Amino acid sequence: MKLQILGCYAATPRTMTNPTSQVLEVKNHMFLIDCGEGSQVQLRKHKIKFSRINHIFISHLHGDHFFGLPGLVSTFRLLGRDKELHIYGPKGIKEAITLLLKLGDSWTNYQLYFHELTSKEPEVIFEDDKVTVETIRLSHRVYTNGFLFKEKAGERKLNVEAVEKHKIDKAYFQNIKNGRDVVLDDGTIVSNTELSFDPPVPKSYAYCSDTGYKPDIVDQIKGATALYHESTFLESEAHLAVKTKHSTAMQAASIAKAANVGMLILGHYSTRYKSIELFKEEAMEIFPNVELADDGKFFEF
Amino acid sequence: MKLQILGCYAATPRTMTNPTSQVLEVKNHMFLIDCGEGSQVQLRKHKIKFSRINHIFISHLHGDHFFGLPGLVSTFRLLGRDKELHIYGPKGIKEAITLLLKLGDSWTNYQLYFHELTSKEPEVIFEDDKVTVETIRLSHRVYTNGFLFKEKAGERKLNVEAVEKHKIDKAYFQNIKNGRDVVLDDGTIVSNTELSFDPPVPKSYAYCSDTGYKPDIVDQIKGATALYHESTFLESEAHLAVKTKHSTAMQAASIAKAANVGMLILGHYSTRYKSIELFKEEAMEIFPNVELADDGKFFEF
Repeated sequence: MKLQILGCYAATPRTMTNPTSQVLEVKNHMFLIDCGEGSQVQLRKHKIKFSRINHIFISHLHGDHFFGLPGLVSTFRLLGRDKELHIYGPKGIKEAITLLLKLGDSWTNYQLYFHELTSKEPEVIFEDDKVTVETIRLSHRVYTNGFLFKEKAGERKLNVEAVEKHKIDKAYFQNIKNGRDVVLDDGTIVSNTELSFDPPVPKSYAYCSDTGYKPDIVDQIKGATALYHESTFLESEAHLAVKTKHSTAMQAASIAKAANVGMLILGHYSTRYKSIELFKEEAMEIFPNVELADDGKFFEF
Repeated sequence: MKLQILGCYAATPRTMTNPTSQVLEVKNHMFLIDCGEGSQVQLRKHKIKFSRINHIFISHLHGDHFFGLPGLVSTFRLLGRDKELHIYGPKGIKEAITLLLKLGDSWTNYQLYFHELTSKEPEVIFEDDKVTVETIRLSHRVYTNGFLFKEKAGERKLNVEAVEKHKIDKAYFQNIKNGRDVVLDDGTIVSNTELSFDPPVPKSYAYCSDTGYKPDIVDQIKGATALYHESTFLESEAHLAVKTKHSTAMQAASIAKAANVGMLILGHYSTRYKSIELFKEEAMEIFPNVELADDGKFFEF
């Protein structure tokens, strides 16, 4: 999985800091996650082909996660897009985007599908043969979902040596990859575990922004390869985190620790702080493997 | 009058080019004219105090003139604004902005006044003791207004020498500035033209974007100190200008010439062209005093 951070700062776009947006590349998909104002320029800056984006996931309808979407939808049209586009987000997102397109008399030439979310429980909102995406219910001032991107378990890997030793015909290879044993001509059964290796462990990425401290998400994101968790505040402003339904770096780290994730990526920093290194320092008191998101930063896991 | 160009390129925001927005400073007002995506970042970049903006004029509801407005309105709230804000734009602008604020549960703390425009004739939409703003009816794919910003004629200037010569008491000075004659104690009438000088010629700025070629605006903008007129295309793409209801640089220059304006500022360039200098060259074949708008450029007139 490859994660390109386009923006990861809270509240208002500034000269040097962009509101939330990121692109996750997984199994040939380019999933756009949130779309603050200016995201389309960030996409250009990081040379991400607009045509590769077919699914956009919006966590909630605050401006810093969403006000770049009307412009992106319009730009897709101006660039002559014809592929369909799927937008997943809270109820109301369809009304907002369609009203803006209507007022500009700028209907898209391509098919635009809105998948409006209202469920109070996690739900699978995208699935193909390689990936699922499910919502993570978060706690914010408005209806908000995180998203859990999960690879499906792949095929088992052929043990070439073992296959040759037993002189097994090619015709059986797909069955072996699918986990089946092989019965030889003389009736001997060769077990699948002898003929193949376990597939790579499927990876997963949990995106949790914006949210107050919400430990009941731990079960769902347990063992995630990477967790992006918002940390708007440091511990000294924990009272503001409660008041505004955001998290501190330490709270994000507590979630990471309890869920035993591979890596914690912090982001959604309030711009009140001089240095984002402080977020890492505080989080590492609780959880060791902490990375700091920053605009333009790229992660591979 | 001082004009700060924040963005002046057509269609989609790009890494190096911003969609339309500009700030006109006149008689202590900072009028924001159009507000494409990213305008709030451009305002910060050019160090324009957000608190000085109290009136925003939106020409039409295409994204490249308007999609920065929801974010700016939200940012004003986050910055703790309490002064009222007036927004002038086509009917529908209120519904759009209020829907977005409602979905984010982010009502402004300050008073937000919408002045929705529907008239098919030019109308005065703002007036105080020093300035008027009237609409210029343009011809585009959706309902679009330009704006004519006009200083009012100021007071006459006292001719100090003449006043002293006639030993005229201070009490009469305001009357003289207002254009009145003075009757001396002996009954002599001293004419105002002897006691005062003409005030400076009031300046005016005409903003015309977006529009197809529309010569019937010439009477209204006659003699304007400066005219900003869109020139999306060069003459080689005149057929596209007709089709999309935009103008060529030569058409903009024809308007400038017929209206006998002091200066023509070109802008709203299609990003298809390698150099914007070509726009100036073509326009100068028709009208001599042509300037090119560019992002970040500043004009004083």
